[in-house]
Amino acid sequence: MSALPVYRATLQAEWIDYNGHLRDAHYGLVLSYAIDDFMDHVGLDAGYRERTACTIYTLELHMNYLHEVKGSDELEVASSVLDVDRKRIHVGCRFTCRRLSEPVATGEVLLLHVHQGDRPAAVEFPPDIARTLESSKLSSDASAAWGPGSRKIELKRRKS
Amino acid sequence: MSALPVYRATLQAEWIDYNGHLRDAHYGLVLSYAIDDFMDHVGLDAGYRERTACTIYTLELHMNYLHEVKGSDELEVASSVLDVDRKRIHVGCRFTCRRLSEPVATGEVLLLHVHQGDRPAAVEFPPDIARTLESSKLSSDASAAWGPGSRKIELKRRKS
Repeated sequence: MSALPVYRATLQAEWIDYNGHLRDAHYGLVLSYAIDDFMDHVGLDAGYRERTACTIYTLELHMNYLHEVKGSDELEVASSVLDVDRKRIHVGCRFTCRRLSEPVATGEVLLLHVHQGDRPAAVEFPPDIARTLESSKLSSDASAAWGPGSRKIELKRRKS
Repeated sequence: MSALPVYRATLQAEWIDYNGHLRDAHYGLVLSYAIDDFMDHVGLDAGYRERTACTIYTLELHMNYLHEVKGSDELEVASSVLDVDRKRIHVGCRFTCRRLSEPVATGEVLLLHVHQGDRPAAVEFPPDIARTLESSKLSSDASAAWGPGSRKIELKRRKS
């Protein structure tokens, strides 16, 4: 597995909510920038988009908010390829900050490779990018252990 | 079930990404503002937070991106209480715009009622707010039919 870059974000004052924490949506913004970095790293960059008219659409996102993040924190986001097929990438993002030893959040995204035009359509990755993605993929054991991950959200009640 | 307000968002130019669409993270920002509106509506507003030192933390978010949203669109977000217990609310948000008859996105959030202080702790809703939440809750049939909802994200492969 080849190493993926770690994305670093300095929090902006307007991202902090009335609880004194990073607003939930802005974890998503940091994740979105981290995914842009990831795309650049695997060759799905601005030049690629211009040459091929192909790009990435986000199909799904699941965030787990684990610890409070404050305005003075710097966030680091480590991305992992949890799985990949001919047209889709399943990426896991782990958020950390120096103040805490445990991750402060995790996020999973499902990405689709799309040819944009009058009628956007899902298309296969070209062979070189498919190879890069495949070589970045976690082992199936590491991927299964990655988390906390996405799930069907529901309230389970204690029986009393 | 009492009706919840619909949140309306005019998209800002800086929310549009290099694909010409609303950036994935900014659906989350619109959802976050819609949840603020929802909280105001059920009595968990700024005055409540000031009086009680209690607030809402977001524990989880799952987004489904269903259709492309463009800079000229106006988004409407309809919130539904999918479930509620003594300390938590499970809210579903359906995103629509006038250009399309189908929802353009759905989002689910899991919210926790927290007393903030030196050691933030989950606490029960006061009785009046618990009643309001209970009366806003969808029937279990309507809640089960709500979607597309959250799920464990995974790539399922066709057998060939």
